[in-house]
Amino acid sequence: MNQFEGSHILSVNQLDLDSIQTIFNVASRMMPYALREKRNNVLDGAILGNLFFEPSTRTRVSFGCAFNLLGGHVRETTGMASSSLSKGESLYDTARVLSTYSDVIAMRHPDSYSVKEFAEGSRVPVINGGDGSNEHPTQALLDLYTIQKELKCAGRGIDGMHIAMVGDLKFGRTVHSLSRLLCMYKNISFTLISPAELAMPDYVISDIENAGHSIKITDQLEGHLDKADILYLTRIQEERFPSQEEANKYRGKFRLNRSIYTQHCKSNTVIMHPLPRDSRAQANELDNDLNSHPNLAIFRQADNGLLIRMALFALTLGVDHQLEKYECPVNWYSRKADR
Amino acid sequence: MNQFEGSHILSVNQLDLDSIQTIFNVASRMMPYALREKRNNVLDGAILGNLFFEPSTRTRVSFGCAFNLLGGHVRETTGMASSSLSKGESLYDTARVLSTYSDVIAMRHPDSYSVKEFAEGSRVPVINGGDGSNEHPTQALLDLYTIQKELKCAGRGIDGMHIAMVGDLKFGRTVHSLSRLLCMYKNISFTLISPAELAMPDYVISDIENAGHSIKITDQLEGHLDKADILYLTRIQEERFPSQEEANKYRGKFRLNRSIYTQHCKSNTVIMHPLPRDSRAQANELDNDLNSHPNLAIFRQADNGLLIRMALFALTLGVDHQLEKYECPVNWYSRKADR
Amino acid sequence: MNQFEGSHILSVNQLDLDSIQTIFNVASRMMPYALREKRNNVLDGAILGNLFFEPSTRTRVSFGCAFNLLGGHVRETTGMASSSLSKGESLYDTARVLSTYSDVIAMRHPDSYSVKEFAEGSRVPVINGGDGSNEHPTQALLDLYTIQKELKCAGRGIDGMHIAMVGDLKFGRTVHSLSRLLCMYKNISFTLISPAELAMPDYVISDIENAGHSIKITDQLEGHLDKADILYLTRIQEERFPSQEEANKYRGKFRLNRSIYTQHCKSNTVIMHPLPRDSRAQANELDNDLNSHPNLAIFRQADNGLLIRMALFALTLGVDHQLEKYECPVNWYSRKADR
Repeated sequence: MNQFEGSHILSVNQLDLDSIQTIFNVASRMMPYALREKRNNVLDGAILGNLFFEPSTRTRVSFGCAFNLLGGHVRETTGMASSSLSKGESLYDTARVLSTYSDVIAMRHPDSYSVKEFAEGSRVPVINGGDGSNEHPTQALLDLYTIQKELKCAGRGIDGMHIAMVGDLKFGRTVHSLSRLLCMYKNISFTLISPAELAMPDYVISDIENAGHSIKITDQLEGHLDKADILYLTRIQEERFPSQEEANKYRGKFRLNRSIYTQHCKSNTVIMHPLPRDSRAQANELDNDLNSHPNLAIFRQADNGLLIRMALFALTLGVDHQLEKYECPVNWYSRKADR
Repeated sequence: MNQFEGSHILSVNQLDLDSIQTIFNVASRMMPYALREKRNNVLDGAILGNLFFEPSTRTRVSFGCAFNLLGGHVRETTGMASSSLSKGESLYDTARVLSTYSDVIAMRHPDSYSVKEFAEGSRVPVINGGDGSNEHPTQALLDLYTIQKELKCAGRGIDGMHIAMVGDLKFGRTVHSLSRLLCMYKNISFTLISPAELAMPDYVISDIENAGHSIKITDQLEGHLDKADILYLTRIQEERFPSQEEANKYRGKFRLNRSIYTQHCKSNTVIMHPLPRDSRAQANELDNDLNSHPNLAIFRQADNGLLIRMALFALTLGVDHQLEKYECPVNWYSRKADR
Repeated sequence: MNQFEGSHILSVNQLDLDSIQTIFNVASRMMPYALREKRNNVLDGAILGNLFFEPSTRTRVSFGCAFNLLGGHVRETTGMASSSLSKGESLYDTARVLSTYSDVIAMRHPDSYSVKEFAEGSRVPVINGGDGSNEHPTQALLDLYTIQKELKCAGRGIDGMHIAMVGDLKFGRTVHSLSRLLCMYKNISFTLISPAELAMPDYVISDIENAGHSIKITDQLEGHLDKADILYLTRIQEERFPSQEEANKYRGKFRLNRSIYTQHCKSNTVIMHPLPRDSRAQANELDNDLNSHPNLAIFRQADNGLLIRMALFALTLGVDHQLEKYECPVNWYSRKADR
């Protein structure tokens, strides 16, 4: 029995280097199924309750497909207006009732700590798919998995690496959680590039410093990228600003395109972005002229989300040791691997 | 061939004691699948059209999971704005077209008798999931099933029992349908507790009286619970009131908590509630301090909904006699039974 | 390998008579599965991404069920507000990310050519489920399939036939695409009946004329139906008019009922309509008194949509030659064929 069987996945804080490596090992074994080289029915008959009380196409579909790829059924709920929560029902009651309908639950909710509260009433494992500005642990895991995989291709490891984080570091939940995971490694150099008003929160900076890593803080992009192994760009989270005008002040402040990349980065700097990237002219933080660049890892990064979520389902449902037994051939047209 | 094969389930009025017992027998056989002790593929390849023209997370998901638990696919529609009904299409046309896409349909709609009208155009069995203020037969069946099961545990039967119904008896559709089902039994004592303005409708009271049962009507909770075998609480249906203010007049009028229960009820009185219960301070009709009380049946009641819906699918699709043949083992982590 | 394997289906313009016949042949082989005489698991484990950025119950459910009927899973997205597109993401990025989650995509979107743009970023085949006022190729194919099948029952073919198209020929996307397909045949007679303001667009008329077919244009229904083999009625597309008042000017202009049909049509004229038909008194373009008439093909037409979509999935995923191998018996109640 693995350590995650029957457990909730609520926060990156419940993970250590060993448990992260366990997840990553299972994720890697998911590749042939995600690429449709083989299919897998290990969860045939199991049901995922995919509860998105806050909408999110990409994360919702990723969880649902990850479950389908292991052979399971998916029952979905989107939005909150129609739910019993709007009639005064507690998260505990909602969880008690809905958890009888499925074998595992993935949940997103606009309120911080709501997923944890829900999990306390649930009779099945709950995976946090994002609880407001608090946590989004599967995104943090897929980011870290991508960093490890991309650096490994270049014969390097995470210990001792240099990462530059760029953009909205205040509201960008993903850079907070990723930083927290990176703190477990050794001797990381962080370069934090943002407008002063959108700087990384103090508690994240303290965590990084207390873990003994080095930090450089600046509001300039050019001149600060030359050492980065990983360049992690983010979108201005306009939906968290008091007004569109306020957000517009910062949109387009930092833009990366092929010419800036070539001039200011090492030839093997990996470009990441949690997506969506804002492609409108006034923002365009990551230009389409880099789309065919081999170091642009943003789509491989999104693809990795499928592997991480498949791994978490296999682990919480305790089937990680049975994957090979439930393999079967693919008999339909399947795209060629391109990652 | 069972009597429900190929038939619609539209109203509790189409049921008699025999047919109810047929449903309950199949529901009981669904337990091992609902509890994931085994899984069942008898409906592998069948498609449920889950049409919720009025939103309802709980009932919708319960129908969908019930179908998945028997191995079938589920195709869902929620809301009405986007449907052809909004372009002037008749329910007959909608039914003719949508019924070609599935093997059975579960439908909720805000208008009374709309599900019946739809069923007339449908080429497959239609199960009423609630048609406005008219009927919600699967809720009535799961309530009755719960009463029978809870009383049986205490060595009693439904004939001769005492039930107290509390709260919004005017707009609470579930107490109307449940009363109608109970009328088929013998010698039931009803205590109806509500504000005068939210009293049980006259036609229900006539039905009860004509069937020879006894009724006591009051607007006081305390002093009227001591004989109840079943205590059935309801929420103020605020969405049916002309205004929030009007609803607020009645919210919080009747509250049950552990101290009131201990003082005023028999030690084996079973507490039921159709859920959701309103846990906000101003209502709180059923306090959380009873959550761990063994006589609180509200979550077992919700769980039973799954069994009833699985039974209705098996019966309308005529596979009730084939269940054992399509059993298979569960190979993933599965929660322990706690009902 | 068939010519559609791994390809997008974006427009009727990419089809010729041969490829249409290939689709129709596979569609005909889908009948026993659509009628539940047998079921088919050839796409067991495959995932359809059913992306409806513009709502449409009927088409969405039809695509989803078609995929389920071949054994596959369906992951759905409806509406656009919640999608990353609203945060400035390009269709290219959306496609790159979402296409990793499924094996084939069916997509509807309110903007013309958006589906084509999406397809350029997709790594899996994309089927156009309607891109604004541009195209809806699966509707055109099911219309043509219905015409061929209905005429064949009467021992006739498409070459040399007479079709009358009635109603909103300006905004009715289906008559444009159907006309384009019919142009590939020989010696068709078109009678186009509409208010002058809602006349067939010039480019469609040119196409018909250039292909050597004959056209008669009129704003009168009676007196112009006596030669029609096919009578194709349409609804006033009120949602495309500047105002409800503007649309109302034309609603109810042309009505067909049993008495008009009997008086003005040949005894074997086939009645078609893309549905939904507007049954409200002020419109009522096709009266319910024809519902039981054997020449009313409108529900057979809708049913055929399932066959066409099943065929397109089988062809794009390259399993058209394996259908028989994955057949299995149906073990549940199944409606009798009535088409």
